[in-house]
Amino acid sequence: MSVPKVLVVGSGGVGAIAALSLHLNKKCEVTLVVRSDYEHVVNHGYEIDSVTYGKFMNWKPTHVSKNVHDAYRDHGEFDFIVVTTKNIPDGAITCEDIIRPAVTPKSTTIVLIQNGIDIETPMHEQFPGNVVLSGVSLIGSSNINCKVNNSHKDQLTLGVFENPDDTSDEYIERSTEKLNQFYDLYQNADESINKVTIDKNVKRSRWEKLVYNSVLNTITAIVNLDVNRCQIAVQNEDLFLPAMDEIIAIAASEGVVVDKSQKDKFIHIGDGLFYSPSMCIDQRKGQLMELEIILGNPIKIARKNNVPTPILSVIYHLLHMVQFRIKEKNGLIKINQDDFKNMKSDDYPAHFAKK
Amino acid sequence: MSVPKVLVVGSGGVGAIAALSLHLNKKCEVTLVVRSDYEHVVNHGYEIDSVTYGKFMNWKPTHVSKNVHDAYRDHGEFDFIVVTTKNIPDGAITCEDIIRPAVTPKSTTIVLIQNGIDIETPMHEQFPGNVVLSGVSLIGSSNINCKVNNSHKDQLTLGVFENPDDTSDEYIERSTEKLNQFYDLYQNADESINKVTIDKNVKRSRWEKLVYNSVLNTITAIVNLDVNRCQIAVQNEDLFLPAMDEIIAIAASEGVVVDKSQKDKFIHIGDGLFYSPSMCIDQRKGQLMELEIILGNPIKIARKNNVPTPILSVIYHLLHMVQFRIKEKNGLIKINQDDFKNMKSDDYPAHFAKK
Repeated sequence: MSVPKVLVVGSGGVGAIAALSLHLNKKCEVTLVVRSDYEHVVNHGYEIDSVTYGKFMNWKPTHVSKNVHDAYRDHGEFDFIVVTTKNIPDGAITCEDIIRPAVTPKSTTIVLIQNGIDIETPMHEQFPGNVVLSGVSLIGSSNINCKVNNSHKDQLTLGVFENPDDTSDEYIERSTEKLNQFYDLYQNADESINKVTIDKNVKRSRWEKLVYNSVLNTITAIVNLDVNRCQIAVQNEDLFLPAMDEIIAIAASEGVVVDKSQKDKFIHIGDGLFYSPSMCIDQRKGQLMELEIILGNPIKIARKNNVPTPILSVIYHLLHMVQFRIKEKNGLIKINQDDFKNMKSDDYPAHFAKK
Repeated sequence: MSVPKVLVVGSGGVGAIAALSLHLNKKCEVTLVVRSDYEHVVNHGYEIDSVTYGKFMNWKPTHVSKNVHDAYRDHGEFDFIVVTTKNIPDGAITCEDIIRPAVTPKSTTIVLIQNGIDIETPMHEQFPGNVVLSGVSLIGSSNINCKVNNSHKDQLTLGVFENPDDTSDEYIERSTEKLNQFYDLYQNADESINKVTIDKNVKRSRWEKLVYNSVLNTITAIVNLDVNRCQIAVQNEDLFLPAMDEIIAIAASEGVVVDKSQKDKFIHIGDGLFYSPSMCIDQRKGQLMELEIILGNPIKIARKNNVPTPILSVIYHLLHMVQFRIKEKNGLIKINQDDFKNMKSDDYPAHFAKK
């Protein structure tokens, strides 16, 4: 029996370490998609300093490919595709379109090691029958010019995304089988090295993480300040805690009980660290933010279920404008001011959407 | 009878043109306080291109002083002090402290040609008995390196700020007298040149202007986009119009009726112009914004009168964080991260306020 083939898409801090972990565990053949650093990685590999797996010079997995299409042509078909890219559905390309060239109908299992809520929905819609797994990573890892620094033990919470369109026993059994299989590929024999935890309640884990992400990640991005400085400027109970209550209420409207203790946990998780979360950093760098999966999707659910979100809606609208600014700077949006001459501002958005 | 003496404090676009207008009208002696450009103005004056008053090379008023103290020592006492500086009570110095060296108790009339609400309160508190006049300027004027460009006809709406601590007939009569006197100093004989309008309802005029300023000026500053781009990104009724409703409700709680038509006026006032308001520009330049007089004071009034402001409160908290960032960059706030080690974030603001 040949070993399973795993394609890792996204070679940032999380993706590079995922590829390393799978490779070292020697139970699968790893292909890593490396876009901008392709030449460097093929010739020199990565320089890795990982508290989980150790130090490596010139490391690379079995295969490195320039894009998903090449990976499939040269090293497919794949048993698993692990997606570790940022998830920006309103960006230049969706995650579904990124992985599409390598997805074998039904047989490829898609593992989304990504933030946010409802990220599985477009995957289920576009790849019906394929199992989709949820990965929530706690790792602390960066990849800057092929130097990968991993500062925390690699902990992965792994579960099955339910598929509302396929609740058959066959699908559920296959999902569990794939979950256990991927657990086995990733989990080291020695649990003091890395730690994969099976997640029986993926929805709740993801809503819990949103208590932090949809409030502190978003607000720091708007005002361009680290979490602690935000908390020095404005009291927790004046903005952050009531916003967290809104997320918990939206989760509840979906039948997901997020314990109130999560508020206390996340409001204090960065105490004294003066840490800037991912959206804040993206905004600083002029890169698109994971706005829709972190806040847009929760707001959509709130509207559907008639949950009031007075704070989060304002946060969302403001970030939508910030994202608009970043898109225009990156050439994803073009504004011709003359198009708006003699037009009432009420008609701007519709007019713009038409273009 | 000697001519009245007028001190103009603040030599930006509005202040320079106010000094010019008063000077050309030849009914008073004008002293202008010029801080950073003092040497240049003393030696070379201003280069002025004004649609209201014409073109001037090397223009300066009768007297130019480096600061208010020197102005008073060399050219006081003053009948009028015209304040055209930005009004930033949370900044390095308040407007009261700026003008204090030149205020003669009771006799000096203070004319605030400035944005915002409740700006007269600290003046009344600190200079009881002095008349305080309200000036709302529509002019379109900039002063960049002593080149003053005035693009719209100089229109000044002038009224009396009521003094809740002095409702005596004497004070009210004196206020009216000073109002008429300043009208006379500023209004040109030919009304096609400039236009001073007497404002019988100062409160309402100021609340009306807030319909624009507390919503569009603030939001553009948060997201760093001009008004029109904001309106392209987010529909008027999703954010801007409901926020305007909140301002109108706060005004109503103070007995000030702002007609709903003001919303329509201000939501369309910049249609097609792609204009960035003052707070947005200040934020871009890393300068403190007029946050408290434009939004902080309305929010305080809302709290006092139990008016809900779900949108404006979020806007305010976010801008408070942006202002915090600007203050730290400008050295007005110092954060020592070690001070916050081993402290819960709930205690940050109180701890910081103590320092």
